[in-house]
Order: sequence, then structure tokens, then C-alpha cells
Amino acid sequence: MSITVHGFSPSGNCHKVRLLLEQLGRPYTWVEVRSDQGATRTPEFLAINPNAKVPVLVREDGAVLTESNAMLCWLADGTDFLPADPWARAQALSWMFFEQYSHEPCIAVARFICGWTPLDSPRRSELPRLRERAHAALAVMERHLATHDWFTGDRYGIADIALFAYTAPAEEGGVSLADYPAINAWLDRVRATPKFVALPDNDHEVRARIAASA
Amino acid sequence: MSITVHGFSPSGNCHKVRLLLEQLGRPYTWVEVRSDQGATRTPEFLAINPNAKVPVLVREDGAVLTESNAMLCWLADGTDFLPADPWARAQALSWMFFEQYSHEPCIAVARFICGWTPLDSPRRSELPRLRERAHAALAVMERHLATHDWFTGDRYGIADIALFAYTAPAEEGGVSLADYPAINAWLDRVRATPKFVALPDNDHEVRARIAASA
Repeated sequence: MSITVHGFSPSGNCHKVRLLLEQLGRPYTWVEVRSDQGATRTPEFLAINPNAKVPVLVREDGAVLTESNAMLCWLADGTDFLPADPWARAQALSWMFFEQYSHEPCIAVARFICGWTPLDSPRRSELPRLRERAHAALAVMERHLATHDWFTGDRYGIADIALFAYTAPAEEGGVSLADYPAINAWLDRVRATPKFVALPDNDHEVRARIAASA
Repeated sequence: MSITVHGFSPSGNCHKVRLLLEQLGRPYTWVEVRSDQGATRTPEFLAINPNAKVPVLVREDGAVLTESNAMLCWLADGTDFLPADPWARAQALSWMFFEQYSHEPCIAVARFICGWTPLDSPRRSELPRLRERAHAALAVMERHLATHDWFTGDRYGIADIALFAYTAPAEEGGVSLADYPAINAWLDRVRATPKFVALPDNDHEVRARIAASA
């Protein structure tokens, strides 16, 4: 069944879905949605996702799935990217809920504020607290990686994809990865997986804002 | 296999796990952890969950599972509380990720601030924004319930349990449910399910703070 993903390419949440689709070798259509320009707030988009967020996955029959990590679970079901054993699967899900609750709301939001809000945005006052929480989340990951190679049981899978998405570009939000050797080694292992695709390069304007936020 | 849950009874995240265990009729041991008094920050607790959060589920063999919604998935696996069909299961997971990303961080946090922080806490300045976001999440739920009875496919299940936990006591955080008829009808349907157990009553001190926060 052919599927369409509505996504904003620089978004880590959207990139998760693209990365898994590429690694599965599964055909898909990508519809670019400029969420940074209000494109998730139009009546047309809200009819697809009333929660006004990308990514959104739409099946050929029109059925809609929201929430990036739920998409990863659906796409990975029955593949090597998600363990079949219930306890191992629950551990992968645990990391994915950790990602959405304790990781993304600080690491991704710090990056968004640095790269996609004006340099005089009042939201920049949130950065110190977000970075502090980001380091707390990274410390939990570093501790896990001291005794494990992956977050998805014994092998690479969707919990790794979920956590990779915003850990890889963390420094764009002013969150240094210098003190996390195990995380850096894991990021390299993820980048070396077959058919890996990286986030696209940021455009000039975003790069300039990030440079000015350092 | 016998299981132990470390939890703080007034916490909705902890109550989710208790509610499902009771409805499954599955035996368990409950260890009360006063997270409101710093009990998740002790070295003993951090050895079980370095992310310093309750609930934590521990199997008889010592294996640990964190994240309330991952526990629900594991406990419900193979039961009527989680659909077997992959697409329906993904939809339930989508609501559970929505709960942890868009619902709990505003509805639960508003309730926590009102009931469990001093009346002069600086955190109380967060309340207007949290309540605004809480209503945005409730509007998404109300819209779904206009055409569906449940959040877990065709029947009651773990996505309903996840969303019920903090929707039911929303008014303790100053988030009125008066304008959500479909949500109120759904809350009543959940309360009428077999072996339902409610959150325990708040103690006197918490009730007084909530009353003073109105």
C-alpha cells in the first residue's frame, strides 16, 4: 500500500519517518509542509491533523496516522527494526516515550528556538533551562550506552531512530555533546547503518541564526 | 510472574498502571514512593530508574520497565485492552504519545502545581499558559469523541486508560471540563468499566491548596 508523509524536512520528528522508510526500502511520497511558516494551521491541514503537527502519515485509502513514534511502530511492525519479544518491545517503547517526554521537549525545542525564531525572540529566555534539562536526558542515555550498544534491544531499531533524530543535531540548540563519549560512538554506529540518510543541511538563514545563538 | 510497582498513589501516571492491573485481575505488589518528598532522588531509587521518575515496574527476576505507557503496552499485550490489528494498535499508540507530549505536560503539571507546591511558588506563574495548552489538548479529544466512543479502536483499552488518568482530575489544576460534553460522557463510560478503580482522595493539605488555587 502506497503511503504519503506530510512533513517539514528540517524537523527531527519528520526525519525519523523518512529515515525508517528509506532503511526499509519502502516507497513513499513526501509532501513538504512549511510548519515554520504556519502551514500546519491552515483549514486544509487541520482537517488532516487537528493537533496541528507534522509529521502526518496518510495511507492510500485516506486513513491518517499522527505522532512520529506511532508511525515508527506501525512501519516497523514485523520487521527487524522492532523486537518481536513483548518485554524487549516494551523496553523500546519505554525509550520512545522517554524521547517524547524527557528529551524532545528540551533538546528539539532549544534547537528550534536557536534556528527558527528571531534573534530577539522572548522565547530565547527559555534556553538555559531547556539546555539544563537536555543534559539531564543525555546523561540518562549515556548511562544506558555504557552497557548497551542500542536502545532497541540487541540491535539497531526504531528506539534508536527516535532518539537519534534530535540527539544528532543537539549542538544546533547549544547543547554540547562533548562530554558524552558513549553517545558519540552510538551516533556513529547509527550513521553507519545500511541506507542511512542524514537530516538535510540547514538553509543559510537558519545557519546564521544558529551561529549567532552560540 | 509476580510484579512490583513503585508508585506515588496521587500520580495519574502511576494510577494508570494500577487501574490496568486491577482490571486485568493481575496480582501485584505496590510500593509507595513519596515523589512529592524527594523519594525519587535517593541513590536507591536512582539505581532502579536513573530518570528519577515513578512509576517503575519491576519483575520477579529484577528486570525493570520505566514509562507508564510502555508498562500499559506490555501488560495489555495479547489482551482485549490493546487491539491485535497493527493499524488499530498504531492508532492507540498515537493517542498515548499525544497524551505524553500534548496532554500530560500541561494538564498534569497544572494539577501538580495547584495541589503540591506552596501557594507562593513561583511556578504558579506558569498556570495560565499551561491551562491554555490543556484546553487545546482537550479540544482535540472532544473532536475525536464526537465520532468515536473510545481512544483504543472500537473498545475501551489502554489509550483510554492513559488519557483518563489526568483528564478525570483536570479541574484540580483549574482546567474546567464544563465545555466538553463528549469528554464528560467518555469519562463516565470509563468509570463504568468492570473493576474500575478511581484515584484515591487527596489528603487534607492538598485539597486546601487546590481550593486556594481556584
